[in-house]
Amino acid sequence: MSNPYWSDIVRELDPYVPGEQPKIANLVKLNTNENPYGPSPDVLAAIATESGDNLRLYPDPNALELKQAIADYYSVDVDQVFLGNGSDEVLAHIFQGLLKHDSPILFPDITYSFYPVYCGLYQVSYDRVPLAEDFSIDVEDYCRENGGIIFPNPNAPTGVLMSLDRIEWLLEKNSDSVVVVDEAYIDFGGESAVTLVKRFPNLLVTQTLSKSRSLAGLRIGLAIGDVALIEALERVKNSFNSYPLSRFAIVGGVAAFADEQYFQTTCRRVMDSREQLVGQLDELGFHTLPSAANFILTRHPEKVAADLMSQLRARGIIVRYFSQPRIDQYLRITVGTPEQNAQLISALSELVSS
Amino acid sequence: MSNPYWSDIVRELDPYVPGEQPKIANLVKLNTNENPYGPSPDVLAAIATESGDNLRLYPDPNALELKQAIADYYSVDVDQVFLGNGSDEVLAHIFQGLLKHDSPILFPDITYSFYPVYCGLYQVSYDRVPLAEDFSIDVEDYCRENGGIIFPNPNAPTGVLMSLDRIEWLLEKNSDSVVVVDEAYIDFGGESAVTLVKRFPNLLVTQTLSKSRSLAGLRIGLAIGDVALIEALERVKNSFNSYPLSRFAIVGGVAAFADEQYFQTTCRRVMDSREQLVGQLDELGFHTLPSAANFILTRHPEKVAADLMSQLRARGIIVRYFSQPRIDQYLRITVGTPEQNAQLISALSELVSS
Repeated sequence: MSNPYWSDIVRELDPYVPGEQPKIANLVKLNTNENPYGPSPDVLAAIATESGDNLRLYPDPNALELKQAIADYYSVDVDQVFLGNGSDEVLAHIFQGLLKHDSPILFPDITYSFYPVYCGLYQVSYDRVPLAEDFSIDVEDYCRENGGIIFPNPNAPTGVLMSLDRIEWLLEKNSDSVVVVDEAYIDFGGESAVTLVKRFPNLLVTQTLSKSRSLAGLRIGLAIGDVALIEALERVKNSFNSYPLSRFAIVGGVAAFADEQYFQTTCRRVMDSREQLVGQLDELGFHTLPSAANFILTRHPEKVAADLMSQLRARGIIVRYFSQPRIDQYLRITVGTPEQNAQLISALSELVSS
Repeated sequence: MSNPYWSDIVRELDPYVPGEQPKIANLVKLNTNENPYGPSPDVLAAIATESGDNLRLYPDPNALELKQAIADYYSVDVDQVFLGNGSDEVLAHIFQGLLKHDSPILFPDITYSFYPVYCGLYQVSYDRVPLAEDFSIDVEDYCRENGGIIFPNPNAPTGVLMSLDRIEWLLEKNSDSVVVVDEAYIDFGGESAVTLVKRFPNLLVTQTLSKSRSLAGLRIGLAIGDVALIEALERVKNSFNSYPLSRFAIVGGVAAFADEQYFQTTCRRVMDSREQLVGQLDELGFHTLPSAANFILTRHPEKVAADLMSQLRARGIIVRYFSQPRIDQYLRITVGTPEQNAQLISALSELVSS
């Protein structure tokens, strides 16, 4: 499909396809890495308080209250914090504002599949750097001329974590480039690179409240970095949409960062479930990559992954499958509640023994 | 300020500056064209119902429920509706996806000041077409080679309305270009061009729920047009952010379109207040442009507008002033509640007699 009214760029776009959000009830939905637990009750209370005549008023375009809460939480300055309507929006502004240079940017061959889509939208050239044989990112492969580097940590959809000292090494070797560490899943067992922001003016860390803080439905993402990097993002944001965060996102986000105990408890539960799930998959003969995320990437040596996915779907369980070299025999499975995980294991147990 | 890590485009940006969102209580806030009345109680009820554990889940990326409600409301097909996180986001995607061509796009010299900002962000060339002496848009001035046409109807910050037959004429004369009619304020006395969408594949109408539906704090904007135009916007949107609308925006938007009586009543009140306000300003010697919006543009022949703005501010009343040729002796004043308008008139009465 094309049309004479379209800008040239539209013809070239190859949009991102998100995981399905099915409308069927009672599905075991393990396909988009949502948290199995709801948000903190304090978030719901803050939303209830905000819901009223004030909705007629624009939100604070700068969302200062939430920026301050995040700055306090991570011990950075408020002008080191950038906010967006989900971390996908934050990433979009990063690609446009910080990653478009003469040299191609670098990211892993197996990674968040939105990165090449952003490159298409903003005409950013890129090279995919193959992951090591064990699916880890080898930072030595990123020591060459580049216009920027971006990778999730832990990586998605592998779940494999990079240690902070490797990130530090990478930052030192790439002082002329922005290095974006996309920490969508960092709270499930990784160590945030935010602590390195003060020492590295080329480091930008992104996070989301959609996963560890159970707020995918509210749309809040953030970036933390040197003031100059944040200034670039603010300029892009203020040329795009003055008010990306709703009033609910602002007050809900503040409440989410304030309830540390709920956050720690639910993250711990997810991690415990993950370890149990991996153990059970082992027993069924699956090979699972070591995950520091709220999902796992796993394969069975004797089963075709695409078939397993369909068979699970027929049993009311949705997982994600990527028809892509190197991982086309893997399933990406979100860690659910203990009950959901038990249903999954029960179904897989049947399927692999048949 | 600049920085070696910035993409080239960032240095050139001249971001939009929204009207102030002051944190001081008890101000009479007549500066950002918000509705003086809160949203429909049904909207608040829908939000309360949606607020719970489901926030852990992503929203429907396609927001189909809200698209369908709008399609039904305007008697168009669901694939003729595009949604965004406020109409500013919708406009941004329009500039990128439909207005970037070899020829410059055209918009009025006095209009929504975000338009040239979008052009900066997406490198869209443009020509400003002067308004007529009476601040109306003369469609004959737009009959020349162009890469697209965009204007608000009623225009902002003038409030002046263009009739539907003039829009039709413009569409016929520009069948090779997309014509975007930005109807942010259409519900306060204008006639929507949505009825022309079926006949003109080059027409795109944008609207917002921030003004007439009292939901500036929730962030919902929309566009209606031919399927091919909407497809371009969907491609851009799905290369930018899969989930621009929160769960609250989706259910709140549906409820807002369902409560027609509340909508009609509050719009009528605002229009009645506007007529009363204009009459009172007339009595004080102000010259006010004819407005079909929820704001007016007015000047006093013997007073310096910038001074009046400061003096109002000192009295706790905020209005908007644009330091810009042709309108630098005008104030743009949002129509408030009868009580707010009375406070405004009382203050101005003092100021113009001193």
